Amino acid sequence: MKKITQVNASILIIGNEILSGRTKDTNTSSLALWLNTLGVKVEEVRVIPDVEEIIVDTINKLRKRYKYVFTTGGIGPTHDDITAQSASKAFGLKYEPHKEAFKLLEKYYKPGEFNEGRQRMAWMPSNAKLILNPTSGAPGFFVENVFCLPGVPSILHSMLGGLKNEISGGQPIISKTINLKTVESEIAKSLTHVQENNRDVEIGSYPFFRAGKLGVSIVIRSVDQSKINNCSSQILEFVKEKNIEQLKDN
Amino acid sequence: MKKITQVNASILIIGNEILSGRTKDTNTSSLALWLNTLGVKVEEVRVIPDVEEIIVDTINKLRKRYKYVFTTGGIGPTHDDITAQSASKAFGLKYEPHKEAFKLLEKYYKPGEFNEGRQRMAWMPSNAKLILNPTSGAPGFFVENVFCLPGVPSILHSMLGGLKNEISGGQPIISKTINLKTVESEIAKSLTHVQENNRDVEIGSYPFFRAGKLGVSIVIRSVDQSKINNCSSQILEFVKEKNIEQLKDN
Repeated sequence: MKKITQVNASILIIGNEILSGRTKDTNTSSLALWLNTLGVKVEEVRVIPDVEEIIVDTINKLRKRYKYVFTTGGIGPTHDDITAQSASKAFGLKYEPHKEAFKLLEKYYKPGEFNEGRQRMAWMPSNAKLILNPTSGAPGFFVENVFCLPGVPSILHSMLGGLKNEISGGQPIISKTINLKTVESEIAKSLTHVQENNRDVEIGSYPFFRAGKLGVSIVIRSVDQSKINNCSSQILEFVKEKNIEQLKDN
Repeated sequence: MKKITQVNASILIIGNEILSGRTKDTNTSSLALWLNTLGVKVEEVRVIPDVEEIIVDTINKLRKRYKYVFTTGGIGPTHDDITAQSASKAFGLKYEPHKEAFKLLEKYYKPGEFNEGRQRMAWMPSNAKLILNPTSGAPGFFVENVFCLPGVPSILHSMLGGLKNEISGGQPIISKTINLKTVESEIAKSLTHVQENNRDVEIGSYPFFRAGKLGVSIVIRSVDQSKINNCSSQILEFVKEKNIEQLKDN
């Protein structure tokens, strides 16, 4: 499959709760879908434990390799929240109370409620820029190309709007899905030919089995709508020839 | 947080559909939960695209670093299924039809239905060992410590039973969850003290916000039930002192 050349990004999920299997990660999907609309393609995801040395090392590897890095998790007030201190180390910056974040949080809580635990959420890499949090007050932050977001999906999601202007993407990545009542092996050869004739679009084939329905979703991705249309027609041609039924959804 | 020393593993999710955000990965969670019961701790997950060079390189990095590597995805019959050929390259083995897999698949399909697309699923690294597939016929395989499984969650799940005897884990990792009607900042300091006094258990703190319920799940993990009990009592002590309500579930 030909790689689409695009502005790229990686996602770094920081959290033992994902590695232990307790929690299913949904942040990758919501970040990736949002980034697609900005013309940024997620090319790698890593999930790592709450261990400072590993976080520092992974941030440093990814930030050199990708235009953007998005971390999720580890920015709350408890002992296992060590993303901010790790990001400070990765950039060789001081880990200290952030004046603006401190003011924001002080204002967010009722008088007397801005306790030591909460104050910890204002500690960040020196001069980090804030990512505002309309849901629960505590801001995220970014340093250079590394954006640190919380792990709770609804809070993360609410913070993306304020981040949009910080991302310079390419052309938005668009996709088209064709759902077929067939099995992969029936279309494998024809689909390979279409991919060979359309090297600059990405064609994925995904079988599905659920609720009595069985089929294959073919997903075509590109930044160019006309290329998607062209590729789609070629697929629908062999679908018709083979007398395969098209499904409305999967 | 102290790392539990255990038999370790990594999971390698191969698939553009996860990176694009179209599909949410659930295989990490089901593999990790299953591995916990065998005393194997997942220490890293990577999601990478369907690009041979990247698959080869990542398999080679992970198989040297972890006792076990589990790959998911890319073993079907279509052009974007390149895990078997990539695994062959990673190990410097021939990519060729596997006699036993070929026989299995030939038997699985009705006469005349074992077509070229399906035959492709019998191609594997030379002398790979098979992982039987009770759901849909096409087997996975393993070479040394790298286990290649399919991406479709229900099929992957059905194949784990047959794999159990191939994994030599340590003591099963057990966990206990305490759900509290509180916010993290109220318990952060006390929880830090408990973690400091119990360096060989892993304590995670996870806020939850859903369906009108708001609280914190504290998850204690160890291979030693008595250490979990001990740590749990210390937590329940400060919970009582602080007059925090315990919830049955989150």
